[in-house]
Amino acid sequence: MPNIIDGSLPVVQARTAILTCMDDRVDPMKLLGLPPGDAHVIRNAGGRATDDAIRSLVVSVTVMEKPEIFVIHHTACVMGWVTNEQLRNLARRKSRIDVSQLDFLAFTDLDESVREDVSKITSSSFIDDSVVVTGYVYDLSSSQLREICRR
Amino acid sequence: MPNIIDGSLPVVQARTAILTCMDDRVDPMKLLGLPPGDAHVIRNAGGRATDDAIRSLVVSVTVMEKPEIFVIHHTACVMGWVTNEQLRNLARRKSRIDVSQLDFLAFTDLDESVREDVSKITSSSFIDDSVVVTGYVYDLSSSQLREICRR
Repeated sequence: MPNIIDGSLPVVQARTAILTCMDDRVDPMKLLGLPPGDAHVIRNAGGRATDDAIRSLVVSVTVMEKPEIFVIHHTACVMGWVTNEQLRNLARRKSRIDVSQLDFLAFTDLDESVREDVSKITSSSFIDDSVVVTGYVYDLSSSQLREICRR
Repeated sequence: MPNIIDGSLPVVQARTAILTCMDDRVDPMKLLGLPPGDAHVIRNAGGRATDDAIRSLVVSVTVMEKPEIFVIHHTACVMGWVTNEQLRNLARRKSRIDVSQLDFLAFTDLDESVREDVSKITSSSFIDDSVVVTGYVYDLSSSQLREICRR
């Protein structure tokens, strides 16, 4: 979408916004067969649809011509193996840092975590209803994407 | 760091945490010459050190053996070209969505935005003082990384 503001905005070629985990064993561009420059890739611990992820998605949806959103969580994700409490204890043991105020957004049910995050995006008043959002689980062992839900 | 909780946590090989922009023209693994599986890559609009980015960094620092953090912003970044107000107007024009409550974290000075985000991380009470944090600007035209600051 060139020149959307006043001619000075650099061309935004990207057409896809991906929300996924920070674990770089997940290569979302490769998984979705996208060429370089074709996506906005938002990554955080767990690939969770936090307020900040939604801030980024709103930027994507605003500057892209006809965007599509993909949410990809994965097997063997640290955020699905530990609880908030275990992470807090570990941080305390390792660096004597008190992170008792932090919600790490750990989850216990992988498929459900995808449904939850897709739902947070589709129910956000900041994301237009016409935007297609698809949720996947990526299996690190089989290198397969499994669709969980779609709006 | 294997077996950090009770033997059931998958091995975390990653040793580097990178905070960068969601624009996939920036390939942080390639830029830093890291092999696959060696990093946690946190990405959002602008590569900003938001509370959610810090949540992810705390997870990285907690589960990695001896982590190092890199902050990479880049030239021709949408977040450095538009203001919050322009993005809000654009969203309103495009989808009639009111995003007046959203702070998009746009910036005007690229180098300063890196210094600001490195400072947010190093001053966070959740990140141990011993963690090295380095801030860079990546020039998309010359494909060069320029160091801005380091703690």
